[in-house]
Amino acid sequence: MPSEIRLKRRVQFYETDAAGIVHFSWFFRYMEEAEHALWREAGLSIHPGGSEIGWPRVATSFEFKRPLRFEDEFDVHLRIAEITRRTMRYACRIAQGEATIATGELTVACVRRVAGEPMKSVEIPPEVAARFQVAAT
Amino acid sequence: MPSEIRLKRRVQFYETDAAGIVHFSWFFRYMEEAEHALWREAGLSIHPGGSEIGWPRVATSFEFKRPLRFEDEFDVHLRIAEITRRTMRYACRIAQGEATIATGELTVACVRRVAGEPMKSVEIPPEVAARFQVAAT
Amino acid sequence: MPSEIRLKRRVQFYETDAAGIVHFSWFFRYMEEAEHALWREAGLSIHPGGSEIGWPRVATSFEFKRPLRFEDEFDVHLRIAEITRRTMRYACRIAQGEATIATGELTVACVRRVAGEPMKSVEIPPEVAARFQVAAT
Amino acid sequence: MPSEIRLKRRVQFYETDAAGIVHFSWFFRYMEEAEHALWREAGLSIHPGGSEIGWPRVATSFEFKRPLRFEDEFDVHLRIAEITRRTMRYACRIAQGEATIATGELTVACVRRVAGEPMKSVEIPPEVAARFQVAAT
Repeated sequence: MPSEIRLKRRVQFYETDAAGIVHFSWFFRYMEEAEHALWREAGLSIHPGGSEIGWPRVATSFEFKRPLRFEDEFDVHLRIAEITRRTMRYACRIAQGEATIATGELTVACVRRVAGEPMKSVEIPPEVAARFQVAAT
Repeated sequence: MPSEIRLKRRVQFYETDAAGIVHFSWFFRYMEEAEHALWREAGLSIHPGGSEIGWPRVATSFEFKRPLRFEDEFDVHLRIAEITRRTMRYACRIAQGEATIATGELTVACVRRVAGEPMKSVEIPPEVAARFQVAAT
Repeated sequence: MPSEIRLKRRVQFYETDAAGIVHFSWFFRYMEEAEHALWREAGLSIHPGGSEIGWPRVATSFEFKRPLRFEDEFDVHLRIAEITRRTMRYACRIAQGEATIATGELTVACVRRVAGEPMKSVEIPPEVAARFQVAAT
Repeated sequence: MPSEIRLKRRVQFYETDAAGIVHFSWFFRYMEEAEHALWREAGLSIHPGGSEIGWPRVATSFEFKRPLRFEDEFDVHLRIAEITRRTMRYACRIAQGEATIATGELTVACVRRVAGEPMKSVEIPPEVAARFQVAAT
């Protein structure tokens, strides 16, 4: 029952911008990479083929402390901060060694998707909820 | 029966890289933006909701002559170079005024997609083929 | 002295993901596109060639209400919510007609960049501050 | 003196599109990731801070045989196909086991960049040329 994950990652050239640093939109993708790795660690895919259950993002934020540059190596540390009946909330810290680069949050909701209809909020399936737990603080 | 299209576009900051120029992967996206605008011009969507027909890319190339930088304005000129029973080939020129920035090509194939099966090459539906024509050279 | 801007935009195919909707990271790019258009409206570039002044992002967030799909047209409405001596904060609403798709915020800081040194927070140059004003609420 | 490299990679969610497969623009980024890994293997960075030497892309192409989907694992095999006095050309194969997903090529040129001037083609510095060799066929 994983509650957190740590990824090692290196900045790719296409992630940088003309200011010479990683474009801020990429931090949200780094956080999501960690989320999906956490799900695989739990033995799940967040987007299995043919499933009607989906996990749209409902809120997210980042605070940026220091820039990342081309080829920098960094860590993505993602923890489950909260699980409710219909949502999960993650807390994320991006760091180089002891130095915090950025901190973020991501809240996702469980929905049922039927073709041609709006997504509908549903309870997290028990077989999914059973695989995760909130991280100790 | 459109055979070509010209788009005006401006370089966005997130399209640039640490070399201070547009990352080369973006030219393929500019070309595809023009393709989809051409389809709309023909009264079609290349990816209508619920359709089993798809248009995967089978080959593409670009030659780069001059760089583009943040906030540069440029033109994307896309022409239909060839239509066969199962494929379409586009030729693309990206320019600033008279100066050629890059030239590219894109070949797409018509396929039928059924969930859980590999994509299968099919003939272009007549109602689609009737909407396009090869551009004069 | 502009205080806000409205952009019309259409969803590009490369902005969608396998869930069939715009990937959430794109909303931050839509917001930034509006920011840079606002600066051009003010007669400025946020990243003029050769400038030592830069505007790194220090905090940003989005709440997502409804999804966007391929070829959807939408509006990006960006307002200046606050200007301090060293920062600017924008509020953003992404909408289709009356329907809110998402709302976000972005805080940017003014820095001086010298090659090989860390970025240093500085006061917003008066010639920049004079070009903007906080939007009426 | 490396002449080729093999990377293991997994498809990220943000690399997929509404057709449920990796957007074709990403293959060029996968190829470039391998190029930069090859340079690191050679003890070099392709974009070291403060260098006037740059490596703009002058031509590139891909042929696509099979799609990649979310979370698919794949290999990127990049070989140096040719080194001239001013350019390098890479050949790339993206595969899953024995199955070829796509094959591509990338030609890059060595330039000197001086702020405010156009990039100028120059000979590959000997200390760079000495680190690479053409792959056996």
